Amino acid sequence: MPLVVQKFGGTSVADAERIRAVADHVARSRRDGNDVVVVVSAMGKTTDELVRLAADVSATQPAREVDMLLSAGERISMALLCMALADLGVPATSFTGSQAGIVTDEVHTRAKILEVKGDRLRLTLAAGGVPVVAGFQGVSTANDVTTLGRGGSDTTAVALAAALGADACEIYTDVPGVFTSDPRIVPEARRLPRVSFEEMLEIAATGGRVLALRSVEFARNHHVPLHVRSSFTWEPGTWVGEEDPEMEQAMVTAVTHDLSEAKVTVTRVPDRPGLAARLFRALADRNVNVDMIVQNTSTDGTTDISFTVPGADLAVSAEVAAGLVPEIGATGVTTDDQVARVSLIGAGMKTHPGVTARTFETLAAEGINIEMISTSSIRISCMVRADRAEAAVQALHAAFELA
Amino acid sequence: MPLVVQKFGGTSVADAERIRAVADHVARSRRDGNDVVVVVSAMGKTTDELVRLAADVSATQPAREVDMLLSAGERISMALLCMALADLGVPATSFTGSQAGIVTDEVHTRAKILEVKGDRLRLTLAAGGVPVVAGFQGVSTANDVTTLGRGGSDTTAVALAAALGADACEIYTDVPGVFTSDPRIVPEARRLPRVSFEEMLEIAATGGRVLALRSVEFARNHHVPLHVRSSFTWEPGTWVGEEDPEMEQAMVTAVTHDLSEAKVTVTRVPDRPGLAARLFRALADRNVNVDMIVQNTSTDGTTDISFTVPGADLAVSAEVAAGLVPEIGATGVTTDDQVARVSLIGAGMKTHPGVTARTFETLAAEGINIEMISTSSIRISCMVRADRAEAAVQALHAAFELA
Repeated sequence: MPLVVQKFGGTSVADAERIRAVADHVARSRRDGNDVVVVVSAMGKTTDELVRLAADVSATQPAREVDMLLSAGERISMALLCMALADLGVPATSFTGSQAGIVTDEVHTRAKILEVKGDRLRLTLAAGGVPVVAGFQGVSTANDVTTLGRGGSDTTAVALAAALGADACEIYTDVPGVFTSDPRIVPEARRLPRVSFEEMLEIAATGGRVLALRSVEFARNHHVPLHVRSSFTWEPGTWVGEEDPEMEQAMVTAVTHDLSEAKVTVTRVPDRPGLAARLFRALADRNVNVDMIVQNTSTDGTTDISFTVPGADLAVSAEVAAGLVPEIGATGVTTDDQVARVSLIGAGMKTHPGVTARTFETLAAEGINIEMISTSSIRISCMVRADRAEAAVQALHAAFELA
Repeated sequence: MPLVVQKFGGTSVADAERIRAVADHVARSRRDGNDVVVVVSAMGKTTDELVRLAADVSATQPAREVDMLLSAGERISMALLCMALADLGVPATSFTGSQAGIVTDEVHTRAKILEVKGDRLRLTLAAGGVPVVAGFQGVSTANDVTTLGRGGSDTTAVALAAALGADACEIYTDVPGVFTSDPRIVPEARRLPRVSFEEMLEIAATGGRVLALRSVEFARNHHVPLHVRSSFTWEPGTWVGEEDPEMEQAMVTAVTHDLSEAKVTVTRVPDRPGLAARLFRALADRNVNVDMIVQNTSTDGTTDISFTVPGADLAVSAEVAAGLVPEIGATGVTTDDQVARVSLIGAGMKTHPGVTARTFETLAAEGINIEMISTSSIRISCMVRADRAEAAVQALHAAFELA
């Protein structure tokens, strides 16, 4: 019998009525001839409420206790879903991350999964039941409760699908799938019936919010086909899987944007080997993820080095760079958080030359200046002014005929 | 260093401010030279809210999932308390029932503790930290989350105190201690500075609501001194401990009442050996706890058998009795839920004759009819009409000069 892992996010289990709708859907999936393992997030705003409660209680929040606190949310949603399933005559059993055998490292609030045992899930399936597993949480090698950080429930679902050899992992969310662009900015954006893991990784990394990057990486590494779909319409959504060599690939699949980055420029760095390395080593040592880097040598033997970082890392990045200014003989550091990254993603870029040229032409025609560029074999990213991001996305979506 | 287990009930941790007050008190107890282990209940109305949510979701509530659901409450309160303690510089670590090694049987929603391991609590204490343990919950021998039922957090606290060899177990609640009677009915009731385990057992069994019966039994069996006190005033409350043979014992310590019982009468049972046994065996087989029994033989060779049961068991008791009517040759069954049990408790009764007589005289002077009587060596209970219960309690409290 095919085995499907179905993951339901917070909006999908937001209240009693939604939980009953999820139970209905799980029951129907079984009637259609599937074994089902369910992964749930905490209900709607539960996590936000717990975070607010903690802020009311204390300014000091040990990470271990934050994890203990937040892990309460999924216990509630999963127990309720099991009750709703019982009402429909479907035998269901809830499992905490620990009971499901989701073993993580000891890095609280952003733990990494080391192993998925899943013995009790297999026993429940063998007995004809539905295991309902808490997303987002695990148990550390020190036997403490851990949480997996942002997108953690998606990662739980993919990890379980891999460990149990599931035929598919369905990610139910509040949108009908992965779109060619953000429909709030591009109303004519359309749902993609299928994207490759590689494209999805680039989409997730450049601002697409439907799937967390790490869950896509996990799915690609373990060959778990993902199906992203809406728990409101229950209609087919977007399949994420291996690239299909038989199929002709779209030159551009999606246009994404990300307003959360910021730019740091170190001015007039002497043009000597090793100075840039020293800067980026110092940033790496502070766990800053540098994205784009641009370096232009001027005629006077110095160079301006600009790089982008997540907005949350701007302060520490500026501090690190400023600290190195005397040592490397630069003249100063400037920062800029009014930037946006606009990206085109498409597996077909590898074989279609001319995407870069058309991108430049399109933005130029709109009078949008490109401040930095970075590319991969299936992505082109341009840094533009933040207030031109929407115009850039709309123009590129139209130019590459994604509607 | 003395070790104290401090248990805080739901009203004691009802909101952020109360949680910080508890943290303050724990920190002060440490400064006063104690090691402290904390046991917490769920915050205020959390459990009620979870129960209501479950009712909204489903009519079918498997007991295992009810336990999973309800056990979320203590995770929240204990993590928040650890954060508040961290704010005060007190290193604290929260432990679920499972992590604390509280092993129970597999009877969900009213599990019994089989063993308390407590290894991680000892390690935390040895490292100078405060273990904060979830009350009310444990882990079954089948590795499932269980809850201990009514009064479960008190039982957790006493069981931990016994397992860790604590010098005392402090039960913090929303009243200042154990009183000579319910102050809402008897305004002049006073706090008892000290009662024996035996008296406390009778008080808990006959309507006193401050401590759950099973936690007192556990404390008596394991010689754990209890200190019941208010988390609002922090003043000394009531010590519950071994009977002090040196001290002269009060003839009557407390007057309690209980409106939750009901009476069943089987009419005109033939006066033959074995018929009553058959009735009470049948009731026991349905898990009905029979309290008082009265049997009066009449001159015609038949007898009316009356007995009292908890109000919740009235329907099943009447059904059992009615089922036996043909077999034992009785004429019928009547029920009455407008009864109240009024009890006098006092270790000194054993050595002071005359308590029963004075009880009867007091109630007679008030024109209150006694319908049934039961006694132990330190208790006299009288069944009266429910609408005369308050008058009976007030009259007895005055007659035995408890004010």
